[in-house]
Amino acid sequence: MKGLPSLERAVVVLSRFPGIGPKSARRMIYHLLRRGESAIQELIDVLEGVRDRIQSCRMCHNLSEESLCWICADPGRDGTRLCVVEEPADLLAMEKAGLFKGMYHVLGGRLSPLDGIGPDALHLASLEARLSVGTIVELVVATNPTLEGEATAHYVAQLAETCVPRVTRLAYGLPMGGELEYLDESTLYQAMAGRRDFRRDV
Amino acid sequence: MKGLPSLERAVVVLSRFPGIGPKSARRMIYHLLRRGESAIQELIDVLEGVRDRIQSCRMCHNLSEESLCWICADPGRDGTRLCVVEEPADLLAMEKAGLFKGMYHVLGGRLSPLDGIGPDALHLASLEARLSVGTIVELVVATNPTLEGEATAHYVAQLAETCVPRVTRLAYGLPMGGELEYLDESTLYQAMAGRRDFRRDV
Repeated sequence: MKGLPSLERAVVVLSRFPGIGPKSARRMIYHLLRRGESAIQELIDVLEGVRDRIQSCRMCHNLSEESLCWICADPGRDGTRLCVVEEPADLLAMEKAGLFKGMYHVLGGRLSPLDGIGPDALHLASLEARLSVGTIVELVVATNPTLEGEATAHYVAQLAETCVPRVTRLAYGLPMGGELEYLDESTLYQAMAGRRDFRRDV
Repeated sequence: MKGLPSLERAVVVLSRFPGIGPKSARRMIYHLLRRGESAIQELIDVLEGVRDRIQSCRMCHNLSEESLCWICADPGRDGTRLCVVEEPADLLAMEKAGLFKGMYHVLGGRLSPLDGIGPDALHLASLEARLSVGTIVELVVATNPTLEGEATAHYVAQLAETCVPRVTRLAYGLPMGGELEYLDESTLYQAMAGRRDFRRDV
């Protein structure tokens, strides 16, 4: 709308979020304006908080508000197990699941030659440095079950081959709460190939 | 996540937008962080633009970057026709439709006694003042086709009764591109009740 350039600029910037088109962006701004200046100020304040306080953990590259993240700084974690994930969001999902009590290493993405993302673009050198210390007994590769995640997993596994006794990866299979009828065939294939004896303990 | 209070605060604030839950809010912040500090700064900048530049038009209460909005300031508009809408977003939708070339009056909401929104909470006094000048020949009531919008329309129509020769409202009927099969019965009722002769010009 010609009379509101600053609103239009905000629409353009908000539309850059995945899943938010110009229409929802516009609705968000109307919503803010309806709620008044204090609502806009509050949003600016929290964004400034994110901008100023969130950094990358110098050990594992997790999001952090200190130079070491709360996991790397926690002496109660098992320093002999290391879990490699693509993004901080994946680490948070693993933490929510709650089973793993070791440390993490966040790659900051996955190998994707077509997008120009090679090994140098990921935190692989620092991973190698951590592995070469020789204290890791298990490396859990928890990249995403996509083509690129798989390629990244193989690259990481190869990296660890000589210096880590055990390299594992997350199991593939049925997602809990899903229905066989609606599952894609490759998941079902993996679930069948990885089937386990009924009485075997986890 | 305990280690990231500033991120959590941002999630809470972003979740206040309609249609955005904690999960999408979190995804938005991860997206921002992945894109780096400049992306966060850009968003802060446009929000500051909205906060500092957008005000309410002193004539019609439309969103504006000047004390008079671009419609009220346009000498080419027909000052004898006035269209009453609930929100600035409704005005923008009307402008996009493009048929109406008169002026607007934005009420800033609709009557809703259950939510404590009575006539005093809307821009009705300034509407009355504009109508009482006696230059308006048609008042188009374009509140939303909801119960509350209807109640507001009746209130506005009553207000205009003595000082405006013609008070109209938007037609009810089939939305373009919709299918009869999926229309609610009250819309279909209105479309039937308001049926027009096939050859009659619009």
